[in-house]
Amino acid sequence: MEKISRTKVIDLLTREDFGALVNVKGWVRTRRGSKQINFIALNDGSTINNVQIVVDLANFDEEMLKLVTTGACLSVNGILTESVGSGQRAEVQAQEINVLGACDNTYPLQKKGHSLEFLREMAHLRPRTNTFGAVFRIRHNMAIAIHTFFHERGFFYFHTPLITASDCEGAGQMFQVTTLNLYDLKKDESGSITYEDDFFGKQASLTVSGQLEGELAAMSLGAIYTFGPTFRAENSNTPRHLAEFWMIEPEVAFNEIEDNMQLAEDFIKYCLQWALDNCRDDIQFLNDMFDKELIDRLNSVLSDSFIRLSYTEGIKILEEAVAAGHKFEFPIYWGADLASEHERYLVEDHFKCPVILTDYPKEIKSFYMKQNDDGKTV
Amino acid sequence: MEKISRTKVIDLLTREDFGALVNVKGWVRTRRGSKQINFIALNDGSTINNVQIVVDLANFDEEMLKLVTTGACLSVNGILTESVGSGQRAEVQAQEINVLGACDNTYPLQKKGHSLEFLREMAHLRPRTNTFGAVFRIRHNMAIAIHTFFHERGFFYFHTPLITASDCEGAGQMFQVTTLNLYDLKKDESGSITYEDDFFGKQASLTVSGQLEGELAAMSLGAIYTFGPTFRAENSNTPRHLAEFWMIEPEVAFNEIEDNMQLAEDFIKYCLQWALDNCRDDIQFLNDMFDKELIDRLNSVLSDSFIRLSYTEGIKILEEAVAAGHKFEFPIYWGADLASEHERYLVEDHFKCPVILTDYPKEIKSFYMKQNDDGKTV
Repeated sequence: MEKISRTKVIDLLTREDFGALVNVKGWVRTRRGSKQINFIALNDGSTINNVQIVVDLANFDEEMLKLVTTGACLSVNGILTESVGSGQRAEVQAQEINVLGACDNTYPLQKKGHSLEFLREMAHLRPRTNTFGAVFRIRHNMAIAIHTFFHERGFFYFHTPLITASDCEGAGQMFQVTTLNLYDLKKDESGSITYEDDFFGKQASLTVSGQLEGELAAMSLGAIYTFGPTFRAENSNTPRHLAEFWMIEPEVAFNEIEDNMQLAEDFIKYCLQWALDNCRDDIQFLNDMFDKELIDRLNSVLSDSFIRLSYTEGIKILEEAVAAGHKFEFPIYWGADLASEHERYLVEDHFKCPVILTDYPKEIKSFYMKQNDDGKTV
Repeated sequence: MEKISRTKVIDLLTREDFGALVNVKGWVRTRRGSKQINFIALNDGSTINNVQIVVDLANFDEEMLKLVTTGACLSVNGILTESVGSGQRAEVQAQEINVLGACDNTYPLQKKGHSLEFLREMAHLRPRTNTFGAVFRIRHNMAIAIHTFFHERGFFYFHTPLITASDCEGAGQMFQVTTLNLYDLKKDESGSITYEDDFFGKQASLTVSGQLEGELAAMSLGAIYTFGPTFRAENSNTPRHLAEFWMIEPEVAFNEIEDNMQLAEDFIKYCLQWALDNCRDDIQFLNDMFDKELIDRLNSVLSDSFIRLSYTEGIKILEEAVAAGHKFEFPIYWGADLASEHERYLVEDHFKCPVILTDYPKEIKSFYMKQNDDGKTV
């Protein structure tokens, strides 16, 4: 096979030098056609879009073509051609096809759509689906947006330690980290497990937050952000809880609460705009397949200023809703923490806009939050 | 105090609108001067450089000035002035000084230099030193360079899971992750600890690599990189081993070994160039204080092409060195893995240039490495 430098599908689909000899590599999504001409939809993950490979069957070996099935991995040399029917601007008239990896008919990702539950059982293959491909490409772009946003504003990316000896005693929600042989745990006279022989010479666990280190760094470098894995050993199966997730924590010296609120709003809008600018095809796919209001909602968050509201004002709105007949599962009153249903009422029903709630009762917030002059809120 | 929008020191030092009223906030590094005029070196972490605050003592309250000591946190309003003596282009003639945080004389970071051993005992304060500030600013810039390099080349940033159930059995070098109560471990009939009640329902540990997931992602998305924390429970106190560190793993579909070597060389050069372009003051500090050849060495890596050499050729050079009288601690022969001293001889003594060694004996490399036609090397 003639060696031609590979072009990624995302680049191929915007090239206009029709007639050029190109090479494209990827995985077969579908193959269809007549007895004379076949059309192969080839995807290489660089974009959700496939490039159409047009195959004049008379020019190719029949045994080779039998291997061109869904999931097979191909290298194709051919002529870049203006397309009329593929839904894309460009397609490739195949001249040489090399099957780099064949794929028999037990390959589970056939043409039909698959449920997320089905795909959960094949985590090794699901990145090849449109849905997971879209999610991963968007997640990548959000990570780049996050770094770009903070870097452009003079924040330093700070890596806080994940294994910690802080707050190990009695922290039931943390994962313990150990190299001890659990079959041979040593105990002291009082019956307590001794950790002298453990890796760090003391009890250790996975941190639930880099905040403390982040604050120290901000008090030195001025403005930092963390962006890394975080762990919570909460045994709850809700869409809001993960045992392992990536969290962003900015810490800024000399910021007032107004600065923090502006930073949060600017940050979210920056990331949304980045997604719309750089992941349009992937977001359109999610909009079409999962959530018909997705793009409208993203645009609406971008267009409005976030509502900034005190907790006390928020409670008043919620109490008025109850008085007007709105039913909440959990009771709401001044002093209560807001449940998800209350937050959603304020955001989705009342304001139809993102809301920043401030000045919470000190009793339901952390000890280190700055207390207001009223002595009651933070 | 009049409210003026804060200017970071890094921006202040390049401003040329002398005469402007500015606000600067930061921490006092030193204070010196006469009975009439004091000079405060103020640092806010945005740069290794301090801004000089010029204080006409007659204009300020004596009790307030007593609080302006090394480590104190200040907000200063003043006039931006062209500097003649501070080593910087601009300084600030103080008009108002507000001590945001005082600092008594037990503050351990006084003017004199401190050893790294001393600073190790005060991890909460050492980010305020020139050395750690420089390292953290450079580390931030390297992270941004890494993301920019891969993003510009169409790689997707991929977050691989850190908690894993793979390879738990007998992996002595991994950290076990558990929520089991170690005082009440359940065992089955054969005496084995049962993990049904552990968080994931099976034995889990911290991964030593995201490579497997990364390869799956590359086989879908085309080109990915990981960049995240990695854990090794190796109990060795060498400068080469850390229990927790951040690792980069690119995985690319369709790459040949030549492509991989070019990627590695381009990547390293891109990061070095970024450091020289964006961290010049911090690198100059490290050059002056720790390693007088640092900048020369970085430039030399940038200017030369990396040597690409087979293991067999490398062994030949090392054997010739031994024959010529060079002493190594560990014996060297075809089939032996290279020790650090051998690698350093090739890089520092023989080639004086980075070296990529390929085609190792299959016995000393992982099972999944692609075997060469000779049947002996990979």
